[in-house]
Amino acid sequence: MGNVTIRILARELQLSAATVSKALADSHEISQSTKKRVLEMAAALNYTPNPYASSLRRKKSKTIAVVLPEVADSFFSQAIDGIEAIAQDKGYHVLVCLTHERAHKEQAILHEMLGGRADGILISSCSETTAPSSILELQEKGVPVVFFDRVCEELDTAKVVTDDRNSAYKAADHLIRCGCQEIAFLSISENLSISHERIEGYKHALDERGIKFSPENIIPCTHHAEDNVRLLKDILSKKRRPDGIIASVEKLAVQVYQACRELKLNIPGDVKVVGFSNLVTASLLNPSLTTITQPAFEMGRTAATLLFKALGNKSMDLSQNVLVIPSELQVRDSTG
Amino acid sequence: MGNVTIRILARELQLSAATVSKALADSHEISQSTKKRVLEMAAALNYTPNPYASSLRRKKSKTIAVVLPEVADSFFSQAIDGIEAIAQDKGYHVLVCLTHERAHKEQAILHEMLGGRADGILISSCSETTAPSSILELQEKGVPVVFFDRVCEELDTAKVVTDDRNSAYKAADHLIRCGCQEIAFLSISENLSISHERIEGYKHALDERGIKFSPENIIPCTHHAEDNVRLLKDILSKKRRPDGIIASVEKLAVQVYQACRELKLNIPGDVKVVGFSNLVTASLLNPSLTTITQPAFEMGRTAATLLFKALGNKSMDLSQNVLVIPSELQVRDSTG
Repeated sequence: MGNVTIRILARELQLSAATVSKALADSHEISQSTKKRVLEMAAALNYTPNPYASSLRRKKSKTIAVVLPEVADSFFSQAIDGIEAIAQDKGYHVLVCLTHERAHKEQAILHEMLGGRADGILISSCSETTAPSSILELQEKGVPVVFFDRVCEELDTAKVVTDDRNSAYKAADHLIRCGCQEIAFLSISENLSISHERIEGYKHALDERGIKFSPENIIPCTHHAEDNVRLLKDILSKKRRPDGIIASVEKLAVQVYQACRELKLNIPGDVKVVGFSNLVTASLLNPSLTTITQPAFEMGRTAATLLFKALGNKSMDLSQNVLVIPSELQVRDSTG
Repeated sequence: MGNVTIRILARELQLSAATVSKALADSHEISQSTKKRVLEMAAALNYTPNPYASSLRRKKSKTIAVVLPEVADSFFSQAIDGIEAIAQDKGYHVLVCLTHERAHKEQAILHEMLGGRADGILISSCSETTAPSSILELQEKGVPVVFFDRVCEELDTAKVVTDDRNSAYKAADHLIRCGCQEIAFLSISENLSISHERIEGYKHALDERGIKFSPENIIPCTHHAEDNVRLLKDILSKKRRPDGIIASVEKLAVQVYQACRELKLNIPGDVKVVGFSNLVTASLLNPSLTTITQPAFEMGRTAATLLFKALGNKSMDLSQNVLVIPSELQVRDSTG
């Protein structure tokens, strides 16, 4: 069967295309009996509205986009679940678009969105992000944008974050209380606001306990597992090696375990580990992993709720909404 | 700044809208000098093509959609990585659409796709799927559809699967060799072809070793972690309890660990466990998990490659392509 268009419906019904279109849109200009005839014929011919055509008419895609670095991280997969819980309620589709931490992919995705593919955008920045120009363009075109977790500080819009600084403070403070003196902080990107915040919290805990901060204890990691494991093995093989590690990203905690296993170092005996992580397997690892557990689902839900508020009220000032939902330290065996 | 349309460009350039449109599409009907003027003006006014409008004209969205149950499973997140590797090469966007195992969500997503939102579809069925009608409609409209992992057997199209039957055979055979006599098979859905195949492989191994198959050893699990852990605790608390477990889905293996921990049952001493899983943490669990590791990235890559072949050649018969990429048994400590 070919595409059934409004024109074909109109021909079959001996009505004008405009009448059919208005009937399908439930316009008050069309009588109930005509609407009934049109809907019956549409059902009989299996008419599917073309969303591109109807998007042009209605300027609504009934879709929101979630732009984020990856899905192989339980923070992001749980945040998506929170976003979808709200979108489903509102009858919206969710498109997940992955940047894989690359600025040029993020730019390309946002540029596509300028054409109306989505009514609103939820975004967690990639680690390379520098220019917020595409976001500004979206805002100028009236497409609301809400950041979650990894935010772009210079942009005036809604932001849903966790208490990154205080979380890292708690992680470092916990390690110091467990006897650590040489605490390495594994960082993923210098560009991200969450990295800054977490490093500040870490420094604050050291300072408060009279431990001198050494810049070489901030370890810049990459997105390549093998490179990171190699780097960690180097660091953990040194004479003066860390006795505590804070992994600021879930994957880095797993890589610390791998490096320690290869070097036959005991966790927590030789080195204690805290990971920012929402891994369901955290409690089942050998040893179980002490985590900073982020409110991933709740952050996704809250960000989506704000976005739909903005979609319902074009004059809403999103920039007034910067929400902080706290994370939790869950102490397990990796810190002894 | 408002939306710059082709009409606005045309007015500024004192050309017809058709000429501007053809120039932007690099038509041979338009002179190089005119094209240059149009492109310069487009750049100056920051013109963005409206993808909905241009999709209507070109009937191409330069987008493929991946429809799958969830992303919080490492099989799916790794398959997405494989798909994106190919799509990126081809300059296509990838939209990830999640069904959360619900047939009505899958139907709604596929129905949306009928309107031209994506040029081609990669799909791994939800566990409730029954009617393939939306897929047939997409095929009739010329939208190629390629299945991966969870396929719909009655549909004539390309399918990329792993050797599910043989993998389950290997898992059961391994447990029997390790001394297990009472092997439970945790299943997620009766509707999925992969469930059938895996159960057949499991039965075959029992049969070959002279172990009688008991239907009550096929344990139907749900998508709710808490319900599953409760069910598993019941089964593992019985006098005649399984001494071996095959978890046919990644999450179920994690739930077996949780149930055993709560009951203080030792893995592998009291019960041995094999999981179908691509968990990066499999080797770091306590104990490390014996897995059937599926070629997730490769399956995604292969499925996407077939889809792009079909997009490049509308007369290609996709149904001739049913590819099987084998999985691997990785023996670790959970089977002793």
